[in-house]
Amino acid sequence: MPNFTILNRFSSSFRDYNSHLKLVFICTTVSGGGVLGYNAVVGSSEDAVVAAADKKKVVVLGTGWAATSFMKNLNNPKYDVQVVSPRNYFAFTPLLPSVTCGTVEARSIVEPVRNIFPKKNVEVQFSEAECIKIDAENKKVYCRSISKNNLNGQEEFAVDYDILIISVGANVNTFNTPGVVENCHFLKEVEDAEKIRRTVIDCFERASLPDISEEERKRILHFAIVGGGPTGVEFAAALHDFVNGDLVKLYPGIKDLVQITLLEAGNHILSMFDKRITAFAEDKFQREGIDVKTGSMVVKVTNKEICTKEVTNGGQISSIPYGMAVWSTGIGTRPFIKDFMSQIGQGNRRALLTDEWLRVEGFNDVYALGDCATVNQRKVVEDIAAIFKKADKNNSGTLTVKEFQEVMGDIYERYPQVELYLKNKQMSNIADLLKEDNVDVKKQLNIEELKKVLSKVDSQMKFLPATAQVASQQGIYLAKCFNRMEDCEENPEGPLRFRGEGRHRFKPFRYKHLGQFAPLGGEKTAAQLPGDWVSIGHSSQWLWYSVYASKQVSWRTRALVVTDWTRRFVFGRDSSRI
Amino acid sequence: MPNFTILNRFSSSFRDYNSHLKLVFICTTVSGGGVLGYNAVVGSSEDAVVAAADKKKVVVLGTGWAATSFMKNLNNPKYDVQVVSPRNYFAFTPLLPSVTCGTVEARSIVEPVRNIFPKKNVEVQFSEAECIKIDAENKKVYCRSISKNNLNGQEEFAVDYDILIISVGANVNTFNTPGVVENCHFLKEVEDAEKIRRTVIDCFERASLPDISEEERKRILHFAIVGGGPTGVEFAAALHDFVNGDLVKLYPGIKDLVQITLLEAGNHILSMFDKRITAFAEDKFQREGIDVKTGSMVVKVTNKEICTKEVTNGGQISSIPYGMAVWSTGIGTRPFIKDFMSQIGQGNRRALLTDEWLRVEGFNDVYALGDCATVNQRKVVEDIAAIFKKADKNNSGTLTVKEFQEVMGDIYERYPQVELYLKNKQMSNIADLLKEDNVDVKKQLNIEELKKVLSKVDSQMKFLPATAQVASQQGIYLAKCFNRMEDCEENPEGPLRFRGEGRHRFKPFRYKHLGQFAPLGGEKTAAQLPGDWVSIGHSSQWLWYSVYASKQVSWRTRALVVTDWTRRFVFGRDSSRI
Ligand SMILES: Cc1cc2nc3c(=O)[nH]c(=O)nc-3n(C[C@H](O)[C@H](O)[C@H](O)COP(=O)(O)OP(=O)(O)OC[C@H]3O[C@@H](n4cnc5c(N)ncnc54)[C@H](O)[C@@H]3O)c2cc1C
Ligand SMILES: Cc1cc2nc3c(=O)[nH]c(=O)nc-3n(C[C@H](O)[C@H](O)[C@H](O)COP(=O)(O)OP(=O)(O)OC[C@H]3O[C@@H](n4cnc5c(N)ncnc54)[C@H](O)[C@@H]3O)c2cc1C
Repeated sequence: MPNFTILNRFSSSFRDYNSHLKLVFICTTVSGGGVLGYNAVVGSSEDAVVAAADKKKVVVLGTGWAATSFMKNLNNPKYDVQVVSPRNYFAFTPLLPSVTCGTVEARSIVEPVRNIFPKKNVEVQFSEAECIKIDAENKKVYCRSISKNNLNGQEEFAVDYDILIISVGANVNTFNTPGVVENCHFLKEVEDAEKIRRTVIDCFERASLPDISEEERKRILHFAIVGGGPTGVEFAAALHDFVNGDLVKLYPGIKDLVQITLLEAGNHILSMFDKRITAFAEDKFQREGIDVKTGSMVVKVTNKEICTKEVTNGGQISSIPYGMAVWSTGIGTRPFIKDFMSQIGQGNRRALLTDEWLRVEGFNDVYALGDCATVNQRKVVEDIAAIFKKADKNNSGTLTVKEFQEVMGDIYERYPQVELYLKNKQMSNIADLLKEDNVDVKKQLNIEELKKVLSKVDSQMKFLPATAQVASQQGIYLAKCFNRMEDCEENPEGPLRFRGEGRHRFKPFRYKHLGQFAPLGGEKTAAQLPGDWVSIGHSSQWLWYSVYASKQVSWRTRALVVTDWTRRFVFGRDSSRI
Repeated sequence: MPNFTILNRFSSSFRDYNSHLKLVFICTTVSGGGVLGYNAVVGSSEDAVVAAADKKKVVVLGTGWAATSFMKNLNNPKYDVQVVSPRNYFAFTPLLPSVTCGTVEARSIVEPVRNIFPKKNVEVQFSEAECIKIDAENKKVYCRSISKNNLNGQEEFAVDYDILIISVGANVNTFNTPGVVENCHFLKEVEDAEKIRRTVIDCFERASLPDISEEERKRILHFAIVGGGPTGVEFAAALHDFVNGDLVKLYPGIKDLVQITLLEAGNHILSMFDKRITAFAEDKFQREGIDVKTGSMVVKVTNKEICTKEVTNGGQISSIPYGMAVWSTGIGTRPFIKDFMSQIGQGNRRALLTDEWLRVEGFNDVYALGDCATVNQRKVVEDIAAIFKKADKNNSGTLTVKEFQEVMGDIYERYPQVELYLKNKQMSNIADLLKEDNVDVKKQLNIEELKKVLSKVDSQMKFLPATAQVASQQGIYLAKCFNRMEDCEENPEGPLRFRGEGRHRFKPFRYKHLGQFAPLGGEKTAAQLPGDWVSIGHSSQWLWYSVYASKQVSWRTRALVVTDWTRRFVFGRDSSRI
């Protein structure tokens, strides 16, 4: 069906040459997030022809942050990739709370993966399906198509792999609280955000009907948010802005009945942030009439009430009537990942355990990254004997300064906690560690001294947070490893294998924290940047705008998000119930 | 919950003074549709205080074209209005086909009625509910809230009225064809358009799964459209553009399997348009590979096949496998309107019969307009005797020229078919009618001659089409009547009552046809303007853009639609399945 009119051609050529347009938008997206920029890797132009037999089949599960950043950066023609995910798009999750109130549109924060993945030199196939089982023994995954229309019932199929990359993210965690699944909204997927938006309007429309008692109106207009983490707080703030900026004008009769409550089991909201941010947020919410109830744990949710138990106060139980509840408390494991974990003896964990090269423990050809995985950092102290043995080249039982210096770099590279410890103590290198313990650098070191010096760094071991930042850095890291798989086979670039021969093929994954935002509503954002640099207010809001604009996965979503913001400034948010 | 930061204030003041912005958009929306422009009526500034007891309660059912244009133009403080509709927004239906393929976003063509309705001087309430029963005897309507969430089950309530305005539009008409409701998509509501969009992508994703036979892929990628009217044709064209402009690049492996079929029981598609347009459209579709099957009536739809019967060819039955079917054939009556019609003895009709003043026949306080109603035009011939009697002032049994001239204007006004007849014959006034029959204007007229002259105009009687143009003109007409209800009570402005005393209070409703568009895809549109002026091609497409931009109900939707078009030109349409 060829169809090429003049205008079509004009428009499509315009699209191809849209780089001019980028200039326009660059003005709006001042650097700021440039360093965390998510830029397309241009496929190498030499179209390397690789014999089919030489190719390895990589199966990637998921199209979220981890999978997408892996795919964008993968560039090695030796791989044939098949991506399986129930979503044929990538969703920019940090803007999901904005979608709940129509500050940006759902469609502006998603990009079809078929636009993102195609490469000049890597064969990529996409299947819109969910993985339902991993059979690592036979190197197969079982999948099921997701469309539930009249087409053909649900399709199931199996896919073979040479290498499997698991990046399926996480589930909502209800901590098995009764009634949550039935009665609460979640804020994890694009559909969730759209449903929340519709329900907010629903509550306002419903409370406007005739023949409803004042008490009932109050209940309907009570919005309860469970979980005082960044998502819960941002949603509370966004909802407050939506209500006060737009809805009160349209529903003047009921505006005084609206109540927003934020329930948090801990002592403070935003507890992972700097204390100044927490205090500012709590104070701001209080002034605005958002009721922050800390120390109250939700124990049950019915269709009209939330039951809470005070963490102190002798565990007092109370019931709060509500109209809409949003559950936003931590993440859990997807069922098929749980199954896989019990198969491989990791049944009692929250996430797939990997080594520092993101390989699932016990497998050479299964990688896991993003929210569904957690890196099992190795303690230095477990390896002290091996390190000592490797370093002590002349088997003298003590290390000379030179011997120690020769392994210092490898230690630094192999164990990220060393770097964290040094940073924390504002030291510049491992030698400073020795000085701290008054170990004489001129003398020879014995194993006990080495143990004393190094074991303290293990206190700095942390699990990486389940964030887009971690997931996307892992994706980029893994793609770079895959791109240089053959090169590094010959010339390994990793640290010394203390417990084996030679060097590791790659450097282990290292996370670089670039800071964190907490939008607090009213065009104010809190930003906590590396070095505990804290900034709160309108300027951080503009930083937030520019970082989030610059981090968009494509020029299309970038333009859409920026025009959405502009539309919102000019026209306010839409309250149509669609 | 007061919340006023500097930026908030800036943004809201910006919003209030957004008239400057209008200038910007005026550039994009060159007049064209200006005449049909849908402009807000500014409430009269003298805030007339009307005693509550003097006020009449008007209940308006619906928030579509008819209801919205009524509400926008109503301006009489003597009325308290309660609007009841399951949609808290107005939807610009002519752009629905564009939503199915993402050329514009659903949200860009809707505007919350709570933004449209507020007036300085008329009290307006809105309830998001559907009317389920009209009790005209007791002047009550029964309503049911529509939200089906965990709030409170479904609410029912009754509303009293002094005046009822029924403008609830129409249903899809399946002609009771088996399997249509279960298996076909409709294109009537915003949700329908969004569902179609998702399903198109579903079909492409599904056909891309591994392990599917070629034949099955072909079936899944067969899009069948039933009904060759303007909506079916526009959707077929939009789908063809979407597939060929955007999807083939993303799904290169399956692009050759796509087939679009347009099924039409009549001999031609677009049969209500000029023959040149029909021929152009059929020809264009054939060239583009859209299969136009005329003369085939759909008799059954199963989940995978459409059964058709040839209208000629001895009624041959055939089965066509399909992946997605869209049913777009005419309109039917909503069930509660059907009930009301049987109550009032109109059971065997398709729509509520009204007189020329839009009052439901037999009722002085129930009006019906838009797609749910049809004006029962009175034949001149039925009134000849009364006209003659009224005109023959001296009871001479014949009419003098002067006597006839005195009622000519009233005849012209009372019977719209007179105007149509004159226009058709390119005559300028009723006197020309007499000349046509060689009646000597100098002589006196007898009743037989009058009958002969006037009865021929009844051949021009037509039911008004079920279009937004008719609905919105009716809404404006009725609002203007309501605005001058008291004035015209004293000084009636309508024609003579031939069968009664005095004059009619208002002039009867008269429809002014402003032309019609048929977008044919590939940036080409056919336009048929009054006087059978036909234009096909890119220029009509730009006329279409400008008319549709100018006809938007608010500056918000206008800006949104225009930016959507721009986004589409630059970035193409999105294929994320959300
Ligand atoms: C509302 C919200 C706001 C957030 N804000 C921020 C923020 O501001 N900054 C930040 O750093 N992080 C933020 N996060 C966290 C961040 O979104 C996650 O850490 C990140 O998405 C994890 O990436 P991932 O690739 O592991 O998983 P995801 O991005 O969740 O992707 C998982 C993918 O796997 C797919 N999948 C699911 N099940 C299957 C299956 N059975 N088979 C195959 N595929 C499957 C999914 O469809 C999806 O494509 C936010 C999260 C939410 C929910
Ligand atoms: C896809 C499509 C394209 C079209 N294109 C054009 C075009 O280009 N030009 C043109 O002139 N016409 C067009 N039309 C026709 C036009 O939309 C209709 O003629 C017009 O909408 C009729 O206006 P209305 O007010 O009678 O009904 P609608 O606009 O349909 O409004 C009916 C209202 O009643 C409400 N309602 C429904 N049930 C109830 C209930 N039980 N109680 C209370 N309220 C209820 C609905 O929610 C809605 O708000 C198109 C129609 C469609 C579907």
